[in-house]
Amino acid sequence: MKAVVYQAPYKVTVEEMPDSKIEAHNDAVVRMTTTNICGSDLHMYEGRTPAEPGFIFGHENQGIVEEVGPGVTKVQVGDRVSLPFNIGCGFCFNCERGMTGFCLTVNPAGAGGAYGYAGMGPYQGGQAEYLRVPFADFNCLELPAGEEHENDFAMLSDIFPTGYHGTEMADVKPGDSVAVFGAGPVGIMAAYSSFIRGASVVYVVDKVPERLELAEQIGAVPVDYSQGDAADQIWEMRGGDGVQKAVEAVGYQAHNAEGQENHPMVLEGCVKVVNPTGRIGRVGVFMVGDPGPEDEQAQQGIYPFPIGTFFMKGLTIGMGQANVKKYNRYLRDLIVAGKAIPSQIVSHEVPLKGAPEAYDKFDKRIDGYTKVLIKPGMAA
Amino acid sequence: MKAVVYQAPYKVTVEEMPDSKIEAHNDAVVRMTTTNICGSDLHMYEGRTPAEPGFIFGHENQGIVEEVGPGVTKVQVGDRVSLPFNIGCGFCFNCERGMTGFCLTVNPAGAGGAYGYAGMGPYQGGQAEYLRVPFADFNCLELPAGEEHENDFAMLSDIFPTGYHGTEMADVKPGDSVAVFGAGPVGIMAAYSSFIRGASVVYVVDKVPERLELAEQIGAVPVDYSQGDAADQIWEMRGGDGVQKAVEAVGYQAHNAEGQENHPMVLEGCVKVVNPTGRIGRVGVFMVGDPGPEDEQAQQGIYPFPIGTFFMKGLTIGMGQANVKKYNRYLRDLIVAGKAIPSQIVSHEVPLKGAPEAYDKFDKRIDGYTKVLIKPGMAA
Amino acid sequence: MKAVVYQAPYKVTVEEMPDSKIEAHNDAVVRMTTTNICGSDLHMYEGRTPAEPGFIFGHENQGIVEEVGPGVTKVQVGDRVSLPFNIGCGFCFNCERGMTGFCLTVNPAGAGGAYGYAGMGPYQGGQAEYLRVPFADFNCLELPAGEEHENDFAMLSDIFPTGYHGTEMADVKPGDSVAVFGAGPVGIMAAYSSFIRGASVVYVVDKVPERLELAEQIGAVPVDYSQGDAADQIWEMRGGDGVQKAVEAVGYQAHNAEGQENHPMVLEGCVKVVNPTGRIGRVGVFMVGDPGPEDEQAQQGIYPFPIGTFFMKGLTIGMGQANVKKYNRYLRDLIVAGKAIPSQIVSHEVPLKGAPEAYDKFDKRIDGYTKVLIKPGMAA
Amino acid sequence: MKAVVYQAPYKVTVEEMPDSKIEAHNDAVVRMTTTNICGSDLHMYEGRTPAEPGFIFGHENQGIVEEVGPGVTKVQVGDRVSLPFNIGCGFCFNCERGMTGFCLTVNPAGAGGAYGYAGMGPYQGGQAEYLRVPFADFNCLELPAGEEHENDFAMLSDIFPTGYHGTEMADVKPGDSVAVFGAGPVGIMAAYSSFIRGASVVYVVDKVPERLELAEQIGAVPVDYSQGDAADQIWEMRGGDGVQKAVEAVGYQAHNAEGQENHPMVLEGCVKVVNPTGRIGRVGVFMVGDPGPEDEQAQQGIYPFPIGTFFMKGLTIGMGQANVKKYNRYLRDLIVAGKAIPSQIVSHEVPLKGAPEAYDKFDKRIDGYTKVLIKPGMAA
Repeated sequence: MKAVVYQAPYKVTVEEMPDSKIEAHNDAVVRMTTTNICGSDLHMYEGRTPAEPGFIFGHENQGIVEEVGPGVTKVQVGDRVSLPFNIGCGFCFNCERGMTGFCLTVNPAGAGGAYGYAGMGPYQGGQAEYLRVPFADFNCLELPAGEEHENDFAMLSDIFPTGYHGTEMADVKPGDSVAVFGAGPVGIMAAYSSFIRGASVVYVVDKVPERLELAEQIGAVPVDYSQGDAADQIWEMRGGDGVQKAVEAVGYQAHNAEGQENHPMVLEGCVKVVNPTGRIGRVGVFMVGDPGPEDEQAQQGIYPFPIGTFFMKGLTIGMGQANVKKYNRYLRDLIVAGKAIPSQIVSHEVPLKGAPEAYDKFDKRIDGYTKVLIKPGMAA
Repeated sequence: MKAVVYQAPYKVTVEEMPDSKIEAHNDAVVRMTTTNICGSDLHMYEGRTPAEPGFIFGHENQGIVEEVGPGVTKVQVGDRVSLPFNIGCGFCFNCERGMTGFCLTVNPAGAGGAYGYAGMGPYQGGQAEYLRVPFADFNCLELPAGEEHENDFAMLSDIFPTGYHGTEMADVKPGDSVAVFGAGPVGIMAAYSSFIRGASVVYVVDKVPERLELAEQIGAVPVDYSQGDAADQIWEMRGGDGVQKAVEAVGYQAHNAEGQENHPMVLEGCVKVVNPTGRIGRVGVFMVGDPGPEDEQAQQGIYPFPIGTFFMKGLTIGMGQANVKKYNRYLRDLIVAGKAIPSQIVSHEVPLKGAPEAYDKFDKRIDGYTKVLIKPGMAA
Repeated sequence: MKAVVYQAPYKVTVEEMPDSKIEAHNDAVVRMTTTNICGSDLHMYEGRTPAEPGFIFGHENQGIVEEVGPGVTKVQVGDRVSLPFNIGCGFCFNCERGMTGFCLTVNPAGAGGAYGYAGMGPYQGGQAEYLRVPFADFNCLELPAGEEHENDFAMLSDIFPTGYHGTEMADVKPGDSVAVFGAGPVGIMAAYSSFIRGASVVYVVDKVPERLELAEQIGAVPVDYSQGDAADQIWEMRGGDGVQKAVEAVGYQAHNAEGQENHPMVLEGCVKVVNPTGRIGRVGVFMVGDPGPEDEQAQQGIYPFPIGTFFMKGLTIGMGQANVKKYNRYLRDLIVAGKAIPSQIVSHEVPLKGAPEAYDKFDKRIDGYTKVLIKPGMAA
Repeated sequence: MKAVVYQAPYKVTVEEMPDSKIEAHNDAVVRMTTTNICGSDLHMYEGRTPAEPGFIFGHENQGIVEEVGPGVTKVQVGDRVSLPFNIGCGFCFNCERGMTGFCLTVNPAGAGGAYGYAGMGPYQGGQAEYLRVPFADFNCLELPAGEEHENDFAMLSDIFPTGYHGTEMADVKPGDSVAVFGAGPVGIMAAYSSFIRGASVVYVVDKVPERLELAEQIGAVPVDYSQGDAADQIWEMRGGDGVQKAVEAVGYQAHNAEGQENHPMVLEGCVKVVNPTGRIGRVGVFMVGDPGPEDEQAQQGIYPFPIGTFFMKGLTIGMGQANVKKYNRYLRDLIVAGKAIPSQIVSHEVPLKGAPEAYDKFDKRIDGYTKVLIKPGMAA
């Protein structure tokens, strides 16, 4: 089969690779119809992870079931399915409680597995013609047959649930005021999810004009932090009041207004902008073992944190990757009902062989490459 | 002051009554700008409660603070305020936990007090020029100064929070499917609240064409139970599936398709329409001591209930009046932000002296009298 | 293998039956070490269910894994395991959310499956030498190797989690006052669970002296309803106050003080004894299609219910069988830590061939047969 | 009246001060029967806060109502009451939701007020013969008349609810494993509260032998961090597993095994000891504006925090002072029922004039001064 294969920093190619196949009784093989490039793929692309040459990328996967193992009960050949980026077993302590992002079975290296991601277990990615899916009954979300909503559903494997997870950790409720830091795809999905949960007002902080524009289009109030401290701006807009909830959707490569990396900046902003008793959800990735920064503490993922203020304000914060399965079914139903149209953030659709160029442009943030969907079935 | 006074069954008049005044240190007197007639006022109007002649009706009240007692700290003369229909003290076991509909202080006759309602404590109603408000700091919800959103805010004292309470007890969540029984003002507010909470699809059951039309206008699927069993219709529309949540907004005077009173019908419908593990919220009033029905059990509020099915399905149900204060602040913020426009259910605005005619027509359900707002300041 | 087989009303015998075996890829076969007779087995024993001759009883099962299917990942031969009475698939909508008592996969007849129970799917029971366990990775709870706590762990398959489930639905919290109706094994487990959850005081209502004594032994206040209305007694003991929470652990065969069946009595007692805003959990079984009562409504599981009072008090009630998997892991840890000793309710241990006599005596409630454990490995 | 008055760092004296009196309509004056010295009083005592000479200390107060203002409804002269250390108004956004530690009314300087504490509003403390209590109906917790449980109830104003709050933020549930860092009075109360909430096992980390002994006495497993990294020890004891929940009860003056201040150490320990998906509650005080440390960041309450690990593990943490009113009623009921005996941590009882010596010894941690109760009515 053809697949997008990592070769070296800043280099992926499309290669002929061994076909994905049934390896265990509960496996399925899925023919990919849509498989997205994620912002977090860029960490690997840039060589800032231990991903090795020959590795197939891709954890945002969707397609048609091609084959099922003999232990599979529910999933059938021909089913159209969305695959959560995190792989769960369905029976460990964490999966049982819905914490599928921290499955204790699928990754020998630690809690949580994923397709096509360095350190997340021995699973190839889905930027290919076919994908092997372990524990298929548990990991396949059934989609309505056909091709309707294909690009909306394609957001269900990662970024829509991930944005939603930020609002869940922040406990966004009807009537709430919310600040979202970061207007990339995940940030936009967090703002969008806030409205789904009934927020009365959502502020979205970024400095890229196109992103701020997109935030405004979905009904949020854009806040340009290159024009001054974001929290200060929000407090002023609200007549001297903060917000109740905040979501961080930036991660460890946060940049300040001048374009320099400033890791703790965004979290500080969250702590500053919320009122006492507020809650914060962080879905922006932070890592242990980042070779990037010079600071030895930062390499270990240790950053300054305003604990005094956090304590005085009586805040709560949750962090971590989304447990996609906890949300994808409900978000799917909102898409089917026409209540959610997450595909509005998609910028490009390309065939498999268009992936190398798409990676290049997406990584450089040029030509409007913000969210790229690979269509392995598209005529090249 | 002028006020709407109960005289006898089917007879209210506008009379000159003693002015409302400060009676306790924490009281306020509020000049009414909008005070609504509620469907539950009709129980008193029809003589089916112990309300005595000389009683002023009105528990959906809103206005401008005219005077405050010496113990009042926060509320100030001139403040525009919404008053929850249930009166709370703020310091009893139930008020402390947000259960202000069951205040243990304000009503010597039992848990829970209200303005202008038989059996709910010694408080005159607000269908008058002025209203005395006990524990003013606790019971006044501050509104933005001015007159904007007046009729939307007027829904905050009862029916918007009451509809919302149904969805809270039913635990409506993003993506949920919901069935609301009853498309009167409260039912419509329950459907509306379901969408605020992110429901993907809401079915609204009634048989009155205008009501079903209103349900459709707010985005719900109308279900006409005069055309067949409502639950059956919904299961069929859903391809053989029920819904996850149901809200009952009809109450003890439910009528079947032929127009006969059938008390247990609606609750049976709720139990039938939800899937196993479903949840039901009931805000339709049920009473102990209803002189209406011939059945002795029904007089005591005892009705047949499908407990076997309820158990087999593993359901949960909550009932009771809304704890308005738990919700009104958030719903207010949604109105201010333009995210909620509950006034769309208002059919008429009348001056105080128009109240008797409005009661008559509302009780007879004629001339489109569905939700009447009395404006004591309106030129007669 | 030898097994307890239903022959006719009031008649079970021990017979040689075909060995339990692996039938599907994810099955396991477990050698039974302890398998209990449950009060609900008596419904079948008395011929009040559609159980057919040749059926093996037994849904409270525990043992050692003898064999696993090729799709099984976690469970290994030799593991000591407890088996929840309800069988779940692990990947349907309900199992995913922890509602394993309402699995949508395992029972073609409806939501929820179980071992050895009429109407709960095509699964033989465990009162035998061996038991087939479907979806073994999901359904086996690992126990520490060895024989320690054998009888305590044996309570994990049903009655300990079932009693606990009552307190979960009633939302028993630290400091709460609780009334438990019924001092059979499940009622005692509900009272016991209330204390585990931090209840300050628990009243247990029954009329059988030995049961009331057991209630007292675990720290509860016994209330003998043959001495007067239970709710009245509790209100009086509490100086005119009710309790916050109630658990019903009696079911549809409730008997009044005079020994006559009175189905609604206990639920009425729950509604009466709780304070406004209270919560009720019901785990006592109610059925649809009970041929016992003469009343046609009761046959369909429809009973009178004090809805008026329920509404006025603003109560919440949840009913249904326990989702055992949601609790069994935690309760196991309490047993291992020595914090819970549920085996104190065990009255008898018998070998397989002792089962017929044990059924007879348990059904007649004679010779102190309150909780019988069958030990298939016991020398006969 | 006589009172404990701050004079200068390390110096308090007992002085004749103006009597506490009714200043507002909703005030009460309470005659102190028991008023405790709290570890956090030592911050003021040591001169590390802006407390000024002439200030009366004391925020853990209990006594008999001596006088009530004309607006007071519920509280009556002669009532025995416990006073939460945090003062609430009862009607602000935060008090309404039970967040009384962050009252927006009582402290002009920010969210949250308290008796006798620098920066927490204009309220004298209770280490005196009398105390003025604002919003008395809201702030007084009624205790049973008499003198029974006096020292147990005395724990209700602060440390019992504070320890409990840690377990609430950590969401300790039945069956959980918990690690508590710090075996001072609050840490012991957190461990004790964990058991009340049904924890199966609780580890308590400290290095002071007497404290570890006390931890063992209440059923916890003592962990001496002077013998090696605490988290490592716990993981080892658990056979390579962490715990699900952790409570931090140390605060910003944490000391390492060698006795040097090491602020981030304890929080790092919490993050290390919990399993993925774990939760942490922090009640140990952290401050903004601590003049103690040399590090400029630390002065502002900014400390290194292992965000990478926190994110990878998917953790949640809540911090802040306890909302005492949310818990004190339930904890009182546990004391009355004999289920909780928090007074077991009391080391000394002294009359008012014994306070200076007690402060001195408590600050020096000598002669076993761990929890001192001042009894203003005690014969000197």
